Amino acid sequence: MSKPKVFEKPTGVKDYVPEAAAKLRSIESKVMQCVERWGYQEIITPTLEYYDTVGVASSTEDKKLFKLLDRKGTTLVLRSDVTSPIARVVSSVLKEQSFPLRLSYRANVFRAIEAEAGRDAEFFQTGVELVGDASSESDAEVIALAIACLQAAGVQQFKIAVGHVGFLNGLLEERLQDRQDAQRMLKECLLSRDYVGYRDTIRSLGLTTEVQQELEGILRLRGGQEVCRQAGEATSNPIAKQAIEHLCEIWDVLSAYGVSEHVLIDLTMIGDFSYYTGMTFEGYAEELGFPVCSGGRYDNLLAQFGRPAPATGFALKTNRILEVTGDETDTPLRRVLIVYSAQRRAEALAKAGELRRNEAVAIETQLLGNNENEDFDRRDDASRFDEIFKFVQ
Amino acid sequence: MSKPKVFEKPTGVKDYVPEAAAKLRSIESKVMQCVERWGYQEIITPTLEYYDTVGVASSTEDKKLFKLLDRKGTTLVLRSDVTSPIARVVSSVLKEQSFPLRLSYRANVFRAIEAEAGRDAEFFQTGVELVGDASSESDAEVIALAIACLQAAGVQQFKIAVGHVGFLNGLLEERLQDRQDAQRMLKECLLSRDYVGYRDTIRSLGLTTEVQQELEGILRLRGGQEVCRQAGEATSNPIAKQAIEHLCEIWDVLSAYGVSEHVLIDLTMIGDFSYYTGMTFEGYAEELGFPVCSGGRYDNLLAQFGRPAPATGFALKTNRILEVTGDETDTPLRRVLIVYSAQRRAEALAKAGELRRNEAVAIETQLLGNNENEDFDRRDDASRFDEIFKFVQ
Repeated sequence: MSKPKVFEKPTGVKDYVPEAAAKLRSIESKVMQCVERWGYQEIITPTLEYYDTVGVASSTEDKKLFKLLDRKGTTLVLRSDVTSPIARVVSSVLKEQSFPLRLSYRANVFRAIEAEAGRDAEFFQTGVELVGDASSESDAEVIALAIACLQAAGVQQFKIAVGHVGFLNGLLEERLQDRQDAQRMLKECLLSRDYVGYRDTIRSLGLTTEVQQELEGILRLRGGQEVCRQAGEATSNPIAKQAIEHLCEIWDVLSAYGVSEHVLIDLTMIGDFSYYTGMTFEGYAEELGFPVCSGGRYDNLLAQFGRPAPATGFALKTNRILEVTGDETDTPLRRVLIVYSAQRRAEALAKAGELRRNEAVAIETQLLGNNENEDFDRRDDASRFDEIFKFVQ
Repeated sequence: MSKPKVFEKPTGVKDYVPEAAAKLRSIESKVMQCVERWGYQEIITPTLEYYDTVGVASSTEDKKLFKLLDRKGTTLVLRSDVTSPIARVVSSVLKEQSFPLRLSYRANVFRAIEAEAGRDAEFFQTGVELVGDASSESDAEVIALAIACLQAAGVQQFKIAVGHVGFLNGLLEERLQDRQDAQRMLKECLLSRDYVGYRDTIRSLGLTTEVQQELEGILRLRGGQEVCRQAGEATSNPIAKQAIEHLCEIWDVLSAYGVSEHVLIDLTMIGDFSYYTGMTFEGYAEELGFPVCSGGRYDNLLAQFGRPAPATGFALKTNRILEVTGDETDTPLRRVLIVYSAQRRAEALAKAGELRRNEAVAIETQLLGNNENEDFDRRDDASRFDEIFKFVQ
């Protein structure tokens, strides 16, 4: 293999130059301010975790984990999400703290193989975890909070699609009891949103017309509150029925929050994290094919770290939000250049200090050599500045 | 080797629970706001870089680099500083932008071997690079800015020790011309602040009494402005003399900034980064043995990335500052709990929404089951809240 050139960086990682970086930080801080007002407190976990604990629990596909060895030969991973590290922290450092626990984070996470598909190997998330509350009320809280965060971040048009892993699991288990392979194939079709493949698979299974129509009918279970009723009628399986009931309760709470206009129920949706155990959701911005956030309930993860507890949460994909929030950033600081001669240095620097103390202003200072006294305005980047002060003889 | 327990994290990395995380973020944002007012713009570079480019240029000892392989078999490193990545960016993405460039960053960096000495393997830095200006004025600017940042971060008592690699290099080269080993040994003693070892080494070299006294005299070259004069008299070597002259100029500019009370000249100090080519400095807080910041001039680094340019900068060690800034944090938000019955849900959630929109307040909401109506005040964490609103029958 050839040596990388000096100006190259690894595939799938990015540099954020000042304009993009300012926007990314602005989104992060607006989201973090929003979740803080909902009572969520930020924690920071390490970039490196043990493969055998957090790596395995994370449910990121093994081949997508960045792995390295520490000096003792133990395998480490670069965190692929922050949910599993938080489960570890809740079960260790915070084990004396009573539930519910509301925690938040802003962090970069890593996925090894994404780079080759032209997707990011390192990306930025802001998110929350609500730990220790099994109610549909808490599921609705995190969905409503995701909506508040997207609005705070400046995403104009978006929809939150809400599903429940119990509905499909119950229905497929009932209709395809001994056919695990068929169940898996159908779920894979839904996960990749391959509805043609889903229909073809159903038709290849030799089912009765009635069951075939029932399974095909799932594809129509996307829409508003009416989907709850339709879905309730579509199945008699108790697990599926319970899932639907839970979704109806979530819908009611979201209506009380006044945000159900942003929500649609989508029973074809199954979260792509194997740790989800109940409600799952994804947020789609109008302009973008990829979800800008995803979340769901994961009631079995905490037990893996020794403190069994229900939990629900979401992650916003900060750098995707960057792509859809247009060019409106926070008002940039007024930029001032102070040029001075050595003789008037103290006066010029005192002026700079005074301005910096009293105003939100970005001030650069520049000493002029004697031969530059006459033409400092001709700096080829002079147009960058809103104002230029001169302290020269 | 034994499998790590589920609650463990790798050696040398940390969890920051809410109180510590809030403090760390507060320090970061105060420092970033300070550097922004001095005209420095934030950039974000990736955690992963190529070993052959940024890894080698970083000047972190090879054994201290965290290395991993990408899928093509190319060696990657976890960044060990942000100076080298910024040199790469200035030479590529920003290559059309004219000098001087003022850039800043907040980032986590990694050092592999530190963990075993009980030191951090991952830690947080905030810093700046001033690229494209070779003057002593720009060296003074970054020192003055480091002082402003430490003050902004709430560090009460600190000193900035300023040295120059040219002084020692010049003097040792003159006196120990053909004895590279002896030069290296003496520098290592100074780097580890082993002054006894330094004296012993000098005495073992069989030098004339005069040269021996001259080299021992370096240890006394620490103090205020008077050190410049003493040092100027201590050597006739042109490189050493030039270094002293540069330090005198820096001192004058720092006086103009009005911050020389925080500065001492220390000619025994040699930066621990091999890329430093001129002035180097370290900041010491009264309470702490380790430096809270370090910086210096590195005029050869940019050339390695194809855009030769002088540069100077520093990094603040955010998590060490955390240790010395005591318990004063930003005023935490007022914490409010809103409890409600299902019947009054909409009213309660509307109240929560209204408060969140209009005030800097952290509001948690909780639905009460019917059997809890009477004793919700008995939540064992009720004391966490400044106020509790009740929306119950």
